[in-house]
Amino acid sequence: MSAITGVMPVAPTIFADDEELDLDGQRRVLDYLVDGKSDAVCILANYSEQFSLTDEEREQVLRTTMEHLDGRLPVCVTTSHFSPRIARERSLRAQELGAEMVMLMPPFFGATMKVDDEAVLEYFKRVADGLDVDIMIQDAPMSTTPLSVGLLTRIAKEVPNVNYAKIEMPQAAEKLRALGTSAGSSLPGLFDGEEAITLIPDLEAGARGTMSSCMVPDQLGQIVRDFLAGERDKAITAWENLLPFIHFENRQCGLRATKVLMKEGNIIASDRTRQPVGELQPDTRAQLVEMAKRKDPLILRWA
Amino acid sequence: MSAITGVMPVAPTIFADDEELDLDGQRRVLDYLVDGKSDAVCILANYSEQFSLTDEEREQVLRTTMEHLDGRLPVCVTTSHFSPRIARERSLRAQELGAEMVMLMPPFFGATMKVDDEAVLEYFKRVADGLDVDIMIQDAPMSTTPLSVGLLTRIAKEVPNVNYAKIEMPQAAEKLRALGTSAGSSLPGLFDGEEAITLIPDLEAGARGTMSSCMVPDQLGQIVRDFLAGERDKAITAWENLLPFIHFENRQCGLRATKVLMKEGNIIASDRTRQPVGELQPDTRAQLVEMAKRKDPLILRWA
Repeated sequence: MSAITGVMPVAPTIFADDEELDLDGQRRVLDYLVDGKSDAVCILANYSEQFSLTDEEREQVLRTTMEHLDGRLPVCVTTSHFSPRIARERSLRAQELGAEMVMLMPPFFGATMKVDDEAVLEYFKRVADGLDVDIMIQDAPMSTTPLSVGLLTRIAKEVPNVNYAKIEMPQAAEKLRALGTSAGSSLPGLFDGEEAITLIPDLEAGARGTMSSCMVPDQLGQIVRDFLAGERDKAITAWENLLPFIHFENRQCGLRATKVLMKEGNIIASDRTRQPVGELQPDTRAQLVEMAKRKDPLILRWA
Repeated sequence: MSAITGVMPVAPTIFADDEELDLDGQRRVLDYLVDGKSDAVCILANYSEQFSLTDEEREQVLRTTMEHLDGRLPVCVTTSHFSPRIARERSLRAQELGAEMVMLMPPFFGATMKVDDEAVLEYFKRVADGLDVDIMIQDAPMSTTPLSVGLLTRIAKEVPNVNYAKIEMPQAAEKLRALGTSAGSSLPGLFDGEEAITLIPDLEAGARGTMSSCMVPDQLGQIVRDFLAGERDKAITAWENLLPFIHFENRQCGLRATKVLMKEGNIIASDRTRQPVGELQPDTRAQLVEMAKRKDPLILRWA
């Protein structure tokens, strides 16, 4: 088993000012992540505005990523879709192009289309049918279909590919600890998410990595590596130093933070998000940039 | 102004037993709706399992519908997408192929991606930019982004194409009445939805039509026409006779009901829904068919 640990940042999908895909910008983001010693990269996630892309645009981002990285980093591709038939097709396509892993939320649509436990289990079985790569299940508040510890454990035990879970729910550490106990070796790849704002408690609870944004993957990766190497105090000190910054990202900026700093750092030409996600309010933007400068992250120095 | 009134049933998307699109079945559904004296037809709605289709499949259903109907019925195409850019592209494509109207929910994604009032207004302005056909706004509990009467009124007044609203929220009649007062002639096309289970209260409150399923569009259309022609008692009697049946559809069966009866009536070969929407429980299915037989609807006699 070659479980990925460390930091697996989510690459934003880069747009020009007119909201067209900017694939050159996309390539520069990937180069920055390689240089930042990321352990893997995740594309087409919610932080990548996957909900604002056409199927054809998903394919373009996927193909560009795989071709440009050319094996320099393992790639996790988000392939969520309400229909397991379509989620499976997307996953097979990601595998065909060389992805190491796919990530999926359980099926849900809006406030009312929720799915019961048996149907969620069946969903993941069907997605995994004929698939060789690993599956990461994303457990996030965005989904209206809930994933209990018991259900996650059943899925991990009954679907061999399901080797990763990203837990970004309230009380994530408690859930990670319970999952570690109940799923054991059938779910070796426990990750936290949420821009790593609960990273140390989650590592203490058994997480082996974090799926963060691209804001400070260099520093977050070092924290996870130090922690896993037994350098707990060093990791805690570094994370507590970083928390006000990533917490500002998570609570005040959302997915716009990374793009703002990538533009400030001249990695990309436009920090545009697709509507209806609007621009950061100017004061919030200025505060974010000021906080970033105090942390001296690679994102502002790389280009 | 050529406002559509009466019944505008939602055509289900027809699948074979292996979940592939069944476009021949789709064509037969359209012929049945023409013969059932529908006033228009809506495709690619939630009742059509639009959340379980790829972009390419949406295009196939759209093209097949427009070519096969060839002007025999006005067509409303659901073009909802979180991104107004993509929703606009879909709407322009529907217009290009001859649709009379497009229908959209406000932007939302999952439990957490909600959009504020200004962004919803901006969304509909952007969708309407360069579009000539009418827009119907769908106001349904599935959306986690709420639409107040005040917001719907602003949109109707500021976006000229927005001439229809389908209200299928709790206390729909009260909302329709308030909308009629506040939006007036800027929103002439008030519809109810929810399989017409609140049709008479909604007509009393100012609705001019219903977007039902395809289960009994022939009978529902007659009820609306009678009501609008002043034959109120006749309409009420007919609707109260129908209510237990459509209520069973709405509460016990959801979008599977129409397909089950279309298969029973030999309109289509398979009543398959795409997973994770499973089959009707056998007892529920039998009850639905028994209730249908007592109402003698066209859906069982047409083929």
